[in-house]
Amino acid sequence: MKRDEAPGRAEFPLFETITTRWMDQDAYGHVNNVEYYSYFDTAVNQHLIETAGLEPRTTDVVGMVVDTQCSFFRELTFPEVIEVGIRVAKLGRTSIRYEIGIFKKEDPRPAAFGSFVHVYVERESMTPTPLPPHILAAVEPLVV
Amino acid sequence: MKRDEAPGRAEFPLFETITTRWMDQDAYGHVNNVEYYSYFDTAVNQHLIETAGLEPRTTDVVGMVVDTQCSFFRELTFPEVIEVGIRVAKLGRTSIRYEIGIFKKEDPRPAAFGSFVHVYVERESMTPTPLPPHILAAVEPLVV
Amino acid sequence: MKRDEAPGRAEFPLFETITTRWMDQDAYGHVNNVEYYSYFDTAVNQHLIETAGLEPRTTDVVGMVVDTQCSFFRELTFPEVIEVGIRVAKLGRTSIRYEIGIFKKEDPRPAAFGSFVHVYVERESMTPTPLPPHILAAVEPLVV
Amino acid sequence: MKRDEAPGRAEFPLFETITTRWMDQDAYGHVNNVEYYSYFDTAVNQHLIETAGLEPRTTDVVGMVVDTQCSFFRELTFPEVIEVGIRVAKLGRTSIRYEIGIFKKEDPRPAAFGSFVHVYVERESMTPTPLPPHILAAVEPLVV
Repeated sequence: MKRDEAPGRAEFPLFETITTRWMDQDAYGHVNNVEYYSYFDTAVNQHLIETAGLEPRTTDVVGMVVDTQCSFFRELTFPEVIEVGIRVAKLGRTSIRYEIGIFKKEDPRPAAFGSFVHVYVERESMTPTPLPPHILAAVEPLVV
Repeated sequence: MKRDEAPGRAEFPLFETITTRWMDQDAYGHVNNVEYYSYFDTAVNQHLIETAGLEPRTTDVVGMVVDTQCSFFRELTFPEVIEVGIRVAKLGRTSIRYEIGIFKKEDPRPAAFGSFVHVYVERESMTPTPLPPHILAAVEPLVV
Repeated sequence: MKRDEAPGRAEFPLFETITTRWMDQDAYGHVNNVEYYSYFDTAVNQHLIETAGLEPRTTDVVGMVVDTQCSFFRELTFPEVIEVGIRVAKLGRTSIRYEIGIFKKEDPRPAAFGSFVHVYVERESMTPTPLPPHILAAVEPLVV
Repeated sequence: MKRDEAPGRAEFPLFETITTRWMDQDAYGHVNNVEYYSYFDTAVNQHLIETAGLEPRTTDVVGMVVDTQCSFFRELTFPEVIEVGIRVAKLGRTSIRYEIGIFKKEDPRPAAFGSFVHVYVERESMTPTPLPPHILAAVEPLVV
């Protein structure tokens, strides 16, 4: 995706704030591409824990990540604080496709934009299972 | 991408070996999805450092990651040793699109498959620049 | 060190706030011990970048970490926000010994307490060099 | 500890091999100090999983890290492969104190040397508990 085509701040219903870390930077002195995905994972799970009451240690039904993607538009550097926009692009029977924008403070355009797909499975059997009601309730307001 | 459609071992001309780490695992007790991208980045840079003589601390021309993607098919757990297959799907004037397969030992099918695009830029100006000859020489044998 | 002997909040002149991440947690479902050191490194470097104007990409004089230590008293779990207390226990001619406390929100006692020693060196020769004036000015107020 | 005082290769009964990663390097272009502790944690847990049959997902008795320390003597850079020496300096009723040396290939002197203390607890109550027999059997040969 081209930077000019990526959705702006107004197109995300929810933001989570993440502090960058010294170690996020690689030998090129900028935040390494891999870390952006840790921001994706952190923002989505933070919402699910705080809003849906997800308890990762004990839950029998787990959202497994089956597909992720990211386009990178601008460098980030430590100690920037970033704002992670989250929206739900597709809500299936057993899966959720999130779209994520990574924003620098006061920048209306994203530094990166990507997607993140969870399929819900029973932890033991790894069999897909319908989205649990508490998860559904937490993500429905994010559908765009 | 479906697991059955992903390329097998024979379709990768080069493999790098990576040892997993205790910390790669998240609260679900498997390697977190983010880490797969660190395997991508590690395998590609290892090839460029060892074969093209890339010197990250001093090079004026840098491969910037502009787009990455990964489909996840099977869980990995520590202390598995993994083999990372690398091939070049597209060689442009200023960019390289790698495709990467993550394989468990003795498994002919990948646990994950994704892509990784480098655009070469002058470090100071961030202006795209033609692929340097030493990089080109190192990646041409990987074109499929 | 025993938890009861570790310094409380009032004994730290400066705090930096850090958001935990999903991936900080290991297979035991708590923040992995290794991450605490990334909080140390992040808090100290954030202070030096923001207060001393440290520019890691270009500086010729670098603080090399020569010794670190941490005692762990309480588990942390994502998505806790933590507060990292920093003080300077010893200011030498070429080195700084920081002491760091990791605090949960509203907890007067630290979840962990440790130390972190920087020796300043010329980047090229790796020879110890006196603390630069801008670094000295940034850390003197933290001496206890 | 001074580099010259640190134990050499011959003083470690066991070694685990770890591949460094691109992202281990920070903005100074060398492996960040934090990563050394991930090598400690990885080497010890690899031994316990492979030799003691530790199953982190299901075990009721867990080794909690209560204290770690590291002295850094030499820089490491990606893509070095490192060898992690492990020995047991103290075997208590409920705890194990490991000492760890990080070695570059073919270097008899360590690049770093540190310690790592596990206290065994019942996972639910977090109460210290005697070392389980399978753990004891795996670490007794490492006592020096």
